[in-house]
This record gives sequence, structure tokens and C-alpha cells, in this order.
Amino acid sequence: MPVKDTSSGPCPIGRAADVLGDRWSLLIMRNAVLGQTRFDQFRNDLGIADNILSARLARLIDAGLLTKAPYLDGNRTRQHYVITPAGVALRPVFEALSEWACEFVNPAKPATMAQTVHTPCGQISQDRRHCATCETDIEDGDVAWLLPWLSPSPLPLATAGPTSAG
Amino acid sequence: MPVKDTSSGPCPIGRAADVLGDRWSLLIMRNAVLGQTRFDQFRNDLGIADNILSARLARLIDAGLLTKAPYLDGNRTRQHYVITPAGVALRPVFEALSEWACEFVNPAKPATMAQTVHTPCGQISQDRRHCATCETDIEDGDVAWLLPWLSPSPLPLATAGPTSAG
Repeated sequence: MPVKDTSSGPCPIGRAADVLGDRWSLLIMRNAVLGQTRFDQFRNDLGIADNILSARLARLIDAGLLTKAPYLDGNRTRQHYVITPAGVALRPVFEALSEWACEFVNPAKPATMAQTVHTPCGQISQDRRHCATCETDIEDGDVAWLLPWLSPSPLPLATAGPTSAG
Repeated sequence: MPVKDTSSGPCPIGRAADVLGDRWSLLIMRNAVLGQTRFDQFRNDLGIADNILSARLARLIDAGLLTKAPYLDGNRTRQHYVITPAGVALRPVFEALSEWACEFVNPAKPATMAQTVHTPCGQISQDRRHCATCETDIEDGDVAWLLPWLSPSPLPLATAGPTSAG
């Protein structure tokens, strides 16, 4: 029986599974949302082998979640991997995964809760779409994540780079 | 460099990636949320090889998302795979994935939009947590998904079976 291709099928969950149904891709995109762009940043943080990381980055570029762009390292031009609008738009997916995992993955040793901070007012918002302090809807550019295991201060999320591959 | 184990680490996204960072697991759980429980249902719908499906079901049972339970097929007792509360709780994850994929995966040929129906009133709700028609928060048991490519009527979501393995 042929495996069904879901990447262009009618079911959006099937399409998402095609792009994001991979542990490394999820972890790379999590790190990209938090502002990582360089090959060595991903490698060192994730402990992923170079060839696997290269393959995953190429897939994520094909899928339109990252784009390759030049940057200056001293007087040498190197390439890094900049998040696109499609990558930035994964925020609600990661927030839903995070809330679910806090409650249900290894509940005997619960994960630390990640919290959403509305950067204009600096307050933690329980509702990830609406800030009760400001009584305004939360815009994509106005969010930081408080991840106490990484930093005592809220971490601003990456904004999108250019959408066409460099 | 050793690959970092994220299943019991502090980052909830890392934990989620450990359980759900797999295309087949996402598709099996999507089908389980829609009420599938039998091995042959998953196999026939997904076009997945028996050995791969067995391995994925075992992982999902280990992770607490499904549980094995007996059912009567004619006068024979068979086993099927019943969704647990942790599996039912994936609804917001799938809704976030679905919204994201509709906009960003293969946008030249967009996926059909999935919609949330609040079953007590039967109306489509744009906000997946609050029904504007009834002006009430939407409870987990009161949701159906309208997936036009599968059925013209809204499909009720599965409710959780027993949490201990049969």
C-alpha cells in the first residue's frame, strides 16, 4: 500500500505533520523563534550531528520557514539561517505544545512553565492573545517568553527576515 | 557530542518534540482525536506499514496518549487503542497546527480550512475557546470539527477512555 503524501492534501494537520513531524525540525525552529540563526548555535545547543543539521536546515528552507542570508563575521562573509514570517507564525503552535507538555509529558517530574510576556507593559499574560493589563490584543512583535531555565529575564522572540532565499 | 535528551528536561517544547516530533505519531493522534481506535482503521487511512504502525502505537501508549483496551468483535475479544485525557488534550495543538498550515504550507494550493463547531448550539466558532453565539467558554466535550474534505457534517471529537493500560 503506498504511503499517502499529505504535503499537498486537503487536511491542514496532514500538511503540518509533513513539515513539522520531526523532532529536530521542531527543536531547530524553537531555537530560531528564540533568535538563533547560526549553524554552530544550533549544533552546540542541540547536540545534533553536522550532516543531520544540514539536511534539516535545507528542508526548513524548502518549506519556507527559514531563509539563508549573508552576514559579516569580522571581515569574512558567512551564511546564516534567518526565520521567515512562516517561521515566526509558529508561536501559537509552540505555545500550545508547551502548555500540553507541561501538563502531560512526564508529569511525575513536571517541566517548568513557559510564560508569555507582553513587552509593551512588561507583564506576564495568562491569555497568549490578549493582555489583561493593557486590555489590548497581543501583536506578534510584542511578545517575549519567560523561560526560567534559560534566563531570569524574558527573551524577546525573533522577527522575520527577508522571505526570499539569499 | 551526545544528543541531548529532552524528554525529561526543563523545556516543555523539548518534551513535546520528544513525543510528537514524528509524522506518523501526529497523524495517528489526529485520527484518534477523530474517533479511530482500531489498528486496521489507522492502517487503511494512513497507508502505514504494519510494523511501523505497531511501533508507533506502542510509543504512544508508553507516552500515555493511547491505552489498549478490549472490545467485542462479533464473539471474539480484540484489542483496540483508546485515546486518553492526554490525547484528548492535544486539540489545541492540532488547531494551532491546522491554522498555521492553512496559511503557510503550500500556499499556492491552500488546504481547506478546518472549523470548530460548538456542539451545544451547532454554530461555527471563530474563537476556539469561546463561543460568541452562546457567550460561553467552549468545554472540551462540546466540540466538533468541520472538515469538509471528510464529511459535510461536523465530526464529534473522541472522549477519553480509561487512563490505565488494559
